[in-house]
Amino acid sequence: MSAAIYAGRYKMRTLVIGAEFGGETATAGLIENYPGFKEIDGYDLMKKMKEQAEATGSEVREGRVVLIKKENDLFTLKTEKGEEFVAKTVILAIGTNRRHLNIPNEKELTGKGVHYCVTCDGPVYNGKVVAMVGGGDSSVKGVNFLADYASKIYFIVMEKEVIAEPANFERMKKLKDKVELLYETQIEEIKGSKMLEGLVLSKEFNGSKNLKVDGLFVEIGFDPDVAFAKALGADIDKTGYMKVDSMMRSSVPGLFGAGDAVNMFGSFKQDITAAATGSVAATSAYEYIKENE
Amino acid sequence: MSAAIYAGRYKMRTLVIGAEFGGETATAGLIENYPGFKEIDGYDLMKKMKEQAEATGSEVREGRVVLIKKENDLFTLKTEKGEEFVAKTVILAIGTNRRHLNIPNEKELTGKGVHYCVTCDGPVYNGKVVAMVGGGDSSVKGVNFLADYASKIYFIVMEKEVIAEPANFERMKKLKDKVELLYETQIEEIKGSKMLEGLVLSKEFNGSKNLKVDGLFVEIGFDPDVAFAKALGADIDKTGYMKVDSMMRSSVPGLFGAGDAVNMFGSFKQDITAAATGSVAATSAYEYIKENE
Repeated sequence: MSAAIYAGRYKMRTLVIGAEFGGETATAGLIENYPGFKEIDGYDLMKKMKEQAEATGSEVREGRVVLIKKENDLFTLKTEKGEEFVAKTVILAIGTNRRHLNIPNEKELTGKGVHYCVTCDGPVYNGKVVAMVGGGDSSVKGVNFLADYASKIYFIVMEKEVIAEPANFERMKKLKDKVELLYETQIEEIKGSKMLEGLVLSKEFNGSKNLKVDGLFVEIGFDPDVAFAKALGADIDKTGYMKVDSMMRSSVPGLFGAGDAVNMFGSFKQDITAAATGSVAATSAYEYIKENE
Repeated sequence: MSAAIYAGRYKMRTLVIGAEFGGETATAGLIENYPGFKEIDGYDLMKKMKEQAEATGSEVREGRVVLIKKENDLFTLKTEKGEEFVAKTVILAIGTNRRHLNIPNEKELTGKGVHYCVTCDGPVYNGKVVAMVGGGDSSVKGVNFLADYASKIYFIVMEKEVIAEPANFERMKKLKDKVELLYETQIEEIKGSKMLEGLVLSKEFNGSKNLKVDGLFVEIGFDPDVAFAKALGADIDKTGYMKVDSMMRSSVPGLFGAGDAVNMFGSFKQDITAAATGSVAATSAYEYIKENE
């Protein structure tokens, strides 16, 4: 959206296309660290940015792009509905993919007790018992969010410690009557046929490897989606992300990256850094078009 | 302010100290390209960020720092009023210095017809004739702003062409009955004793090198202020800015840069990129302190 705001101001004919409106931010719930807003819901922030992008003349539409190819200096994008778009430049601001546990029953019970988004699915568990599996900042934020609904939360930490923003960690510590931490624990299996019924842990807790919960939330990180980048012949960096320079230019002329899909600031991936890299990518796209006119 | 928001959330005891509240942004007037706000006054944006920083526990105060030294892994800052502050880390987010024309009478008549901030001093020239000297985006934005007040604006462009955001340039083109462009023209002298009375140009315009105006606005760019960086022994990059890596770390342990004071995205210096680099600098400061505990 940030790239679209800048691209529109550069008077480029700009299309934003994505399968889900607002990406990760739109489902993030309360955001307190985007400079300018003391508190804003992620969905509302993305809606503001969308309206701002549209005010510059950029078009925003939903659609799942399944193919991007480059021929004669022009990119062609195809969506799963068969639409085709031709562009002089493409900015891949496609974020990252959620990691899965890859254990028995996980796929089968997704949406039936297994969830990947607390703000989307947490409120359903009002008064219920849930588990959160993770160990990073997102999982701690998830536990804090769930505590407004669930009666009990088992926080299954895969490693020896939790690595999170201190503000979020301290907020969680205050919930100690509701939150139980299980360190160095893995989930080996998800029980249930039509609905999740419980978990099988890698080690005993209260004398049993079986843990009865009503729901499971998975927050174990993200991997970049480099399928488009690879298909277009773009270089991948050693961390597995599409390689870009400080102006967000990939190794393919006319192809740029932005947001969580690039590794500009290492593991530090925030709304504010995504917005900044989007503005940089749009600027580089503009300069690329001017140079090639 | 962005660094202070993040630093506060990291539970670091954080002081923001600067001579003028909000820096360049606070005097920028209308801002349309900070993602999240379709339209916001720069002062209001900085006030929101200040309140957000203070909500995290960070302290914001006014004061002109005149000295920074590092001894035994601690930085000591002194202000011109003689206050002293000791810190484990310092983030130099000091922006850049405005360039001056360095011509006769410029200094003497500053504030007396010679100005460097249209949003601060433009409204005074309601119904008057003014000149703007520049050629970049800021000067075009300045002309557009002045057009709401002045009856006539001579836009003195030092180079052969104007380099500006197309949206801003097109807005200016619509003002052609009010705005007169003088290309490849320098100002050689400013006339006037107690108040500016006119300009002497490097070449004739309408048959004379003398141009009668009521006021002059200077928007000819910025230079980084690297005095602190140099005094602390930090490396300077080839563009003249304090050298930082992608995580905003200077060559001096514990010293970081952010905003327009660093050259992360080249000449592309925006509120959104400044906010992003501030958040990165705070994160690196936090990691530095953790590592050295």
